[in-house]
Amino acid sequence: MSDKPNPKFLGQNAALPQTPEAAELDYVPNPRAGTLYLVRFAAPEFTSLCPVTGQPDFAHLVIDYAPEATIVESKSLKLFLGSFRNHAAFHEDCTVGIGQRLFDEMKPKWLRIGGYWYPRGGIPIDVFWQSGAPPEGLWLPDQGVAPYRGRG
Amino acid sequence: MSDKPNPKFLGQNAALPQTPEAAELDYVPNPRAGTLYLVRFAAPEFTSLCPVTGQPDFAHLVIDYAPEATIVESKSLKLFLGSFRNHAAFHEDCTVGIGQRLFDEMKPKWLRIGGYWYPRGGIPIDVFWQSGAPPEGLWLPDQGVAPYRGRG
Amino acid sequence: MSDKPNPKFLGQNAALPQTPEAAELDYVPNPRAGTLYLVRFAAPEFTSLCPVTGQPDFAHLVIDYAPEATIVESKSLKLFLGSFRNHAAFHEDCTVGIGQRLFDEMKPKWLRIGGYWYPRGGIPIDVFWQSGAPPEGLWLPDQGVAPYRGRG
Amino acid sequence: MSDKPNPKFLGQNAALPQTPEAAELDYVPNPRAGTLYLVRFAAPEFTSLCPVTGQPDFAHLVIDYAPEATIVESKSLKLFLGSFRNHAAFHEDCTVGIGQRLFDEMKPKWLRIGGYWYPRGGIPIDVFWQSGAPPEGLWLPDQGVAPYRGRG
Amino acid sequence: MSDKPNPKFLGQNAALPQTPEAAELDYVPNPRAGTLYLVRFAAPEFTSLCPVTGQPDFAHLVIDYAPEATIVESKSLKLFLGSFRNHAAFHEDCTVGIGQRLFDEMKPKWLRIGGYWYPRGGIPIDVFWQSGAPPEGLWLPDQGVAPYRGRG
Amino acid sequence: MSDKPNPKFLGQNAALPQTPEAAELDYVPNPRAGTLYLVRFAAPEFTSLCPVTGQPDFAHLVIDYAPEATIVESKSLKLFLGSFRNHAAFHEDCTVGIGQRLFDEMKPKWLRIGGYWYPRGGIPIDVFWQSGAPPEGLWLPDQGVAPYRGRG
Amino acid sequence: MSDKPNPKFLGQNAALPQTPEAAELDYVPNPRAGTLYLVRFAAPEFTSLCPVTGQPDFAHLVIDYAPEATIVESKSLKLFLGSFRNHAAFHEDCTVGIGQRLFDEMKPKWLRIGGYWYPRGGIPIDVFWQSGAPPEGLWLPDQGVAPYRGRG
Amino acid sequence: MSDKPNPKFLGQNAALPQTPEAAELDYVPNPRAGTLYLVRFAAPEFTSLCPVTGQPDFAHLVIDYAPEATIVESKSLKLFLGSFRNHAAFHEDCTVGIGQRLFDEMKPKWLRIGGYWYPRGGIPIDVFWQSGAPPEGLWLPDQGVAPYRGRG
Amino acid sequence: MSDKPNPKFLGQNAALPQTPEAAELDYVPNPRAGTLYLVRFAAPEFTSLCPVTGQPDFAHLVIDYAPEATIVESKSLKLFLGSFRNHAAFHEDCTVGIGQRLFDEMKPKWLRIGGYWYPRGGIPIDVFWQSGAPPEGLWLPDQGVAPYRGRG
Amino acid sequence: MSDKPNPKFLGQNAALPQTPEAAELDYVPNPRAGTLYLVRFAAPEFTSLCPVTGQPDFAHLVIDYAPEATIVESKSLKLFLGSFRNHAAFHEDCTVGIGQRLFDEMKPKWLRIGGYWYPRGGIPIDVFWQSGAPPEGLWLPDQGVAPYRGRG
Ligand SMILES: [Ca+2]
Ligand SMILES: [Ca+2]
Ligand SMILES: [Ca+2]
Ligand SMILES: [Ca+2]
Ligand SMILES: [Ca+2]
Ligand SMILES: [Ca+2]
Ligand SMILES: [Ca+2]
Ligand SMILES: [Ca+2]
Ligand SMILES: [Ca+2]
Ligand SMILES: [Ca+2]
Ligand SMILES: [Ca+2]
Ligand SMILES: [Ca+2]
Ligand SMILES: [Ca+2]
Ligand SMILES: [Ca+2]
Ligand SMILES: [Ca+2]
Ligand SMILES: [Ca+2]
Repeated sequence: MSDKPNPKFLGQNAALPQTPEAAELDYVPNPRAGTLYLVRFAAPEFTSLCPVTGQPDFAHLVIDYAPEATIVESKSLKLFLGSFRNHAAFHEDCTVGIGQRLFDEMKPKWLRIGGYWYPRGGIPIDVFWQSGAPPEGLWLPDQGVAPYRGRG
Repeated sequence: MSDKPNPKFLGQNAALPQTPEAAELDYVPNPRAGTLYLVRFAAPEFTSLCPVTGQPDFAHLVIDYAPEATIVESKSLKLFLGSFRNHAAFHEDCTVGIGQRLFDEMKPKWLRIGGYWYPRGGIPIDVFWQSGAPPEGLWLPDQGVAPYRGRG
Repeated sequence: MSDKPNPKFLGQNAALPQTPEAAELDYVPNPRAGTLYLVRFAAPEFTSLCPVTGQPDFAHLVIDYAPEATIVESKSLKLFLGSFRNHAAFHEDCTVGIGQRLFDEMKPKWLRIGGYWYPRGGIPIDVFWQSGAPPEGLWLPDQGVAPYRGRG
Repeated sequence: MSDKPNPKFLGQNAALPQTPEAAELDYVPNPRAGTLYLVRFAAPEFTSLCPVTGQPDFAHLVIDYAPEATIVESKSLKLFLGSFRNHAAFHEDCTVGIGQRLFDEMKPKWLRIGGYWYPRGGIPIDVFWQSGAPPEGLWLPDQGVAPYRGRG
Repeated sequence: MSDKPNPKFLGQNAALPQTPEAAELDYVPNPRAGTLYLVRFAAPEFTSLCPVTGQPDFAHLVIDYAPEATIVESKSLKLFLGSFRNHAAFHEDCTVGIGQRLFDEMKPKWLRIGGYWYPRGGIPIDVFWQSGAPPEGLWLPDQGVAPYRGRG
Repeated sequence: MSDKPNPKFLGQNAALPQTPEAAELDYVPNPRAGTLYLVRFAAPEFTSLCPVTGQPDFAHLVIDYAPEATIVESKSLKLFLGSFRNHAAFHEDCTVGIGQRLFDEMKPKWLRIGGYWYPRGGIPIDVFWQSGAPPEGLWLPDQGVAPYRGRG
Repeated sequence: MSDKPNPKFLGQNAALPQTPEAAELDYVPNPRAGTLYLVRFAAPEFTSLCPVTGQPDFAHLVIDYAPEATIVESKSLKLFLGSFRNHAAFHEDCTVGIGQRLFDEMKPKWLRIGGYWYPRGGIPIDVFWQSGAPPEGLWLPDQGVAPYRGRG
Repeated sequence: MSDKPNPKFLGQNAALPQTPEAAELDYVPNPRAGTLYLVRFAAPEFTSLCPVTGQPDFAHLVIDYAPEATIVESKSLKLFLGSFRNHAAFHEDCTVGIGQRLFDEMKPKWLRIGGYWYPRGGIPIDVFWQSGAPPEGLWLPDQGVAPYRGRG
Repeated sequence: MSDKPNPKFLGQNAALPQTPEAAELDYVPNPRAGTLYLVRFAAPEFTSLCPVTGQPDFAHLVIDYAPEATIVESKSLKLFLGSFRNHAAFHEDCTVGIGQRLFDEMKPKWLRIGGYWYPRGGIPIDVFWQSGAPPEGLWLPDQGVAPYRGRG
Repeated sequence: MSDKPNPKFLGQNAALPQTPEAAELDYVPNPRAGTLYLVRFAAPEFTSLCPVTGQPDFAHLVIDYAPEATIVESKSLKLFLGSFRNHAAFHEDCTVGIGQRLFDEMKPKWLRIGGYWYPRGGIPIDVFWQSGAPPEGLWLPDQGVAPYRGRG
């Protein structure tokens, strides 16, 4: 299979980027280039700020993509998601924006993101975006995040 | 076993009382008086108002008691709980108050109430009150309400 | 272990008794007499009638007991429980009554019954009775019936 | 991403509207206009009145939509849903009506609503409405509300 | 929305019909006529008799339909389902028969019924019938009844 | 609905057949002939033998079919499944063989079988067979058997 | 820690014993003799015969014990449990008998067995036996087997 | 019951405190002073920093206490927990420290805190602290947070 | 059905291969050749090494395939999967590589693999590959592995 | 709270130790010394070898302890657990041995370990050891690992 890889962040100590703009994502060669397959990341440790009140928001994010020439190295993804810690945006904006940046930079065959936000005012918002209809022949399971149900 | 009972509300149409004070609870003879046993009510349809903001609050209530001379008829209990619809009180106050009124009026051997409130500010409050240590020999299962877990 | 048993109903066709009074429970010799152990029956197929409105009621019953000289044969138990189909009684009365009849007739070391009734007016009633404190050294797991939670 | 937003209700104190007609929904610019994506709200804190008996009803509502020019601000949605507290309507009418008002006012690409009502007479009603077939290429997960199962 | 409705059974006391033939279903005007939507009833309190042995059978029923001119009032549905208490039929016959009667009388756009029967001989039977292919554009979630799994 | 049926095994005592070949399945008239519907059996009590080691194997089987002229009576099905107790076959062979015999004998419109085997060497095998593409307009829910997950 | 062990059955091919009497349990030296700890076996693959009807019965067994000089090797336990395949006994007899044989032969500090049987006549039986009160200081978690719940 | 309360933060806009030291907790009069009861907060939105690597940590916190003269107002609790966003501490230190500050300032009858941290290196840490043995007669349910299980 | 099979590893003792290259998979004749069906393996006991840090990785693998001339014997599959114990590869590479080797050697009609990896840096990766679009008429249930959810 | 800590492994790259004997555990000062509290580690990524067959074994481990002067740093614990990758021992031996080494070296007030092993021969073994009766006043929740249930 593949040779010894040489990622920028994995196996290194790296400080959290101060803003999403400052965060660098590390795209490494796709070890199975030419093959149609799906990669899924589940990121339950996500927090940003409300653009109106400045209060912290929390979300559980799930990202699916079908790689083309590169895959995103997961430690750089972790640092990128961590860089939203002091970033303010609406749930809808934040979720779609993360998906679109990954799509624009990595240029995968296809990508989608589900953002499952914690309730505010008793009502959570979930946001679902994909870059287009999924490629023919791609296997794409449900993300399977439990719906919010209140109490009882 | 027991004769044909004659409750005040069950099998009748009855309007919702306007306040908790206006609600009448119907205590009927305990059909197994002299026996130590437990009755549990689960009431997931409860709503009251916040005393500071006036906004609606919601809770799932579970009431356990060991009857003495009477049992509370469940339709009158439903009407009593419904009477909090326009009542304003803190979660702690409301939950304990319901338990104490039932205990004071019905005079059971023992009673407890668990109030499982919907989250506010991302943090739900649960309130647990009992009238004292449970009687020796009473069988008392857990109430088993699922904890709040946010998302993901 | 034990010889070929000869129960009254098991392996035979038997009509449903018309009333609880008409039902005969079959107590067979305890094959492990002299041993302290627990037998549990779960009976999710139970129905009776409301003594006020005449409407059907439904319950999930769980019965635990520590045998003495006899055990109750489960087909006769099934027929006994089926005999409540046209019997009218309050939830509290019905549940405790079933437990007490089994206790009085079988004379086990100890017995308890949990009755988990379907909601009426949005509020289910659960009833828990035991014949006394459980014997020392008896292993007695929780009945583990899921609490009622409404919707969502 | 987007500038500092200026919603009408979020970050402000606002009284509960007295009727659905009196409630104003706040539609703010879609921060990702031109993008096909889905927004989901889960609202387990919903209550209205029965048009025949006047008794309270409760529901868990889930609303999905694909934004066009605007998105609905969630605090205004919360206040709108709260305005049904003293409104009387059949389950079918109430659920579809909420969906149709949002659709008519917001003019999203597409919208659907699921209403999961608490049981009455032992039988809950669920109501499912959508504005038409979902747009091609929209990612639309199941709402995943647990079915009613009675007891046991 | 709709005027004050006037159903035959809701808000009234009504005895259980003796047979399915004697039961009258109450069809009231569809408050959202002209709209394509789905109504779901979950009925976990169903019992009938085995046509061979005469023993009671139990089922959990779920009915889905898309209304045309009328909707079925849920209290009349409850009474109709209750009328099978002394009716004998195979699981397959009983389930499909309930669906077909509702379909023939109410004339909805479309209807289906799932019957989830309690195990006999260790093997439960589930029965699934629909009146035809579902209408285009109807939103139709899974019924989501948990499969039977034995023990462990 | 249908007349009093007269099955071969239901309501009778019947010994377990010694081999699958010796087992007779009882096909009774379809009480809803001419109607397209689905029947599901869940059989968690299945055991056979490993053809290599002779050790017992266990499986949870689920069978779905759309009846044509007959339905299979469930007690005869139980006896047929029990007849594999001393039969040796690979998981794949055994599961597909049961489905094919039922399909060949009963001649339903369509049939499928899922065999969910207990783990061997830490790895369970599941086998899924169907007689062809399902008929148009048949309602066919997932079988919903939980996947094997090891521990933790 | 311990030397290379030499069990009788593990790592060997071994035929299934024809009866429980013919089965030999392999007790190997306790590798942590002198220490108070608990060993738990979960055995969901158990089957025996009904002593009245001759039909197969199935159970999920869980055995807990605190070793003294020896521990029971798990492959010999598997063979012992498999030897009940053609053995006829009541649920109560069978469960307690397995526990007592292990206790009598192995002479552990303490032992218990839970037998969770599949339903017959709609009613499963669970059997719980222990050799006495558990030793002081032994950590003894619940067995956590899900209760039978019927359908829905 | 109680008069109109006047909390410092609830119903007001309030910025997130920069450090735990800067956060002020609002203790309001106990509306049921003199009564022994339990209050539970579940706070799944908690984040702090690792004192060695500076990377974000996440936790789900659950706090239980028995009030004496005051209760803690939940919005001030939310702000206090939010103030750990830029605070660095070991999991053990952070969890116990939050519990001890609340205990020292509020002086309840009793208090405990459970900190359920997200995995690092594949291994999550949970921390459990209480101020002493719980008071006699206090009803104290389990916190019921699901254990970490990895995948599968 | 099929004759006595003669696999290479099943029923034999066999050492773990040192590398994936050294592992031999045993393909035995398909006992239902000519039939379109699906075989599923769930393998929660999988471990390999990280190619950058050399630390152990863990995964839960699920493999689905539609056999052509042969099926893979499950003990040889277990040994093959075990041979990755000292093999270093990225998650994406490892998962797809296992699927492709099985597909290339066995030449089934179709094959897919889901790799559900344990979290690293708080973020698990799942990988999904299939050999092409599934054959028409193949029944292919979801793999149903629970998503990662963090804590709470 | 505490100063900047200086652990041996956390934040450093470190190779996996070749044997348990070669692994060094890093005990750092207890940041809340003098306080009675509980620390729990869940480690679902554990593998060792069978001492008889040499085949890999897998377990989910949960360790609870009440710190005295030191706490164990979790990265060193991860490396220690990883060092069993090529170590051969019985389940009972391995589980108790890990607990006893931690107890002997760290000298906490109290410690326990639960080992939940993957099934072999269809039967998983769980092992539970504690260093003695838990200290008075320690809060000690259940470990809550789901029991093994086979299939279905
Ligand atoms: Ca909101
Ligand atoms: Ca709820
Ligand atoms: Ca709050
Ligand atoms: Ca009631
Ligand atoms: Ca109704
Ligand atoms: Ca049920
Ligand atoms: Ca049957
Ligand atoms: Ca295998
Ligand atoms: Ca699906
Ligand atoms: Ca696992
Ligand atoms: Ca029985
Ligand atoms: Ca760690
Ligand atoms: Ca990672
Ligand atoms: Ca969470
Ligand atoms: Ca074993
Ligand atoms: Ca099972």
